[in-house]
Amino acid sequence: MNKIILTIGRQFGSGGRIIGKKLAEALGISFYDKELIALAAKESGLCTEVFEKADERASAALSHAFSIGMSYMGVYTPYADILSGEGLFKIQSDVIRKLAATESCVIVGRCADYILRDKPGCLSFFIHDTMPNRIRRITERQQLTEEQAKELIVKTDKSRAAYYDYYTGKPWGVSSSYRLSIDASVLGIDETACFMKDFIERKQAIHTP
Amino acid sequence: MNKIILTIGRQFGSGGRIIGKKLAEALGISFYDKELIALAAKESGLCTEVFEKADERASAALSHAFSIGMSYMGVYTPYADILSGEGLFKIQSDVIRKLAATESCVIVGRCADYILRDKPGCLSFFIHDTMPNRIRRITERQQLTEEQAKELIVKTDKSRAAYYDYYTGKPWGVSSSYRLSIDASVLGIDETACFMKDFIERKQAIHTP
Repeated sequence: MNKIILTIGRQFGSGGRIIGKKLAEALGISFYDKELIALAAKESGLCTEVFEKADERASAALSHAFSIGMSYMGVYTPYADILSGEGLFKIQSDVIRKLAATESCVIVGRCADYILRDKPGCLSFFIHDTMPNRIRRITERQQLTEEQAKELIVKTDKSRAAYYDYYTGKPWGVSSSYRLSIDASVLGIDETACFMKDFIERKQAIHTP
Repeated sequence: MNKIILTIGRQFGSGGRIIGKKLAEALGISFYDKELIALAAKESGLCTEVFEKADERASAALSHAFSIGMSYMGVYTPYADILSGEGLFKIQSDVIRKLAATESCVIVGRCADYILRDKPGCLSFFIHDTMPNRIRRITERQQLTEEQAKELIVKTDKSRAAYYDYYTGKPWGVSSSYRLSIDASVLGIDETACFMKDFIERKQAIHTP
């Protein structure tokens, strides 16, 4: 099998993470989601909490304004550039590019589809699902009422969309940004992962005579 | 095989129409694209030109304003409601609903995914492609320069988006509006149609024990 880099954007609660994990297992390649945070922390020498706090949140951009404000007020901020939203995004992007250059892998979220848009052999996916399925999934893994789960879904998607929009300059979840977008409710988690594997294999069969 | 209704939204020049035709042939079911216009004309007794002029154009909505204007000026317009963008959309929607109630078929464009959103067994697709591929396809079928083809693509997509937005209240080409969105450049026209057929068969295998 040729080297393959897969990126997965996903609605909150859509099962995109677990689909990505199953796909990576089926293909025998690495999987990166929250693992990217530990790598970015290791790479930069910053603590993981800094990355966790800014992770796919629109507010990450605000920290940039904050660091500029600090400089403006004459406060000495030697790490202002690094600690800004852009600085953290840059570190994480470098980690993503490094991984993609090194090994076959699945990378979830963090605008990886955009960061690796010019990378040959990279396939980008977007996973979504119906609202009732997403609410069910969230209430199963967190102590929340259906109403609270729905609120969290709307809030998290909004945050991911703002983050994506800020760093890529285009709206999140638009079909034409991805090679394949799937509603996971049609085939379910396991079969969606199989179907995506089939897409990859069909592509490789065309491009590898 | 159970009855299946497939809708296909598509970027201009993406090959969505031909993919839909190949899919319909492979499944042995009917195919409706421009054919919807003849059916809507027959159903309403209006001439086909009326529907052609308004076909997936944002300006269809303007004819409504025009017909209101005519009434306001005291001009006798017995067919004002029918001839408005909304009137034509209503006739076409009724034709689409009737077809979906009668037979297995593929329906291209005309907000069919939205019109049939609550129809059990209906699967909605969106086809897109890279800009170079779309320009190549348009210049192959029309006497246009690459520059002119690009202009036509941008203009037609803008018009389709405005039409969809007007009648559905949501943006066009967003992943979550469709069950499956595919970039036709990955597998090519024929293989994309095969892959979509596989998606339908996988779904039927799950839901038909």
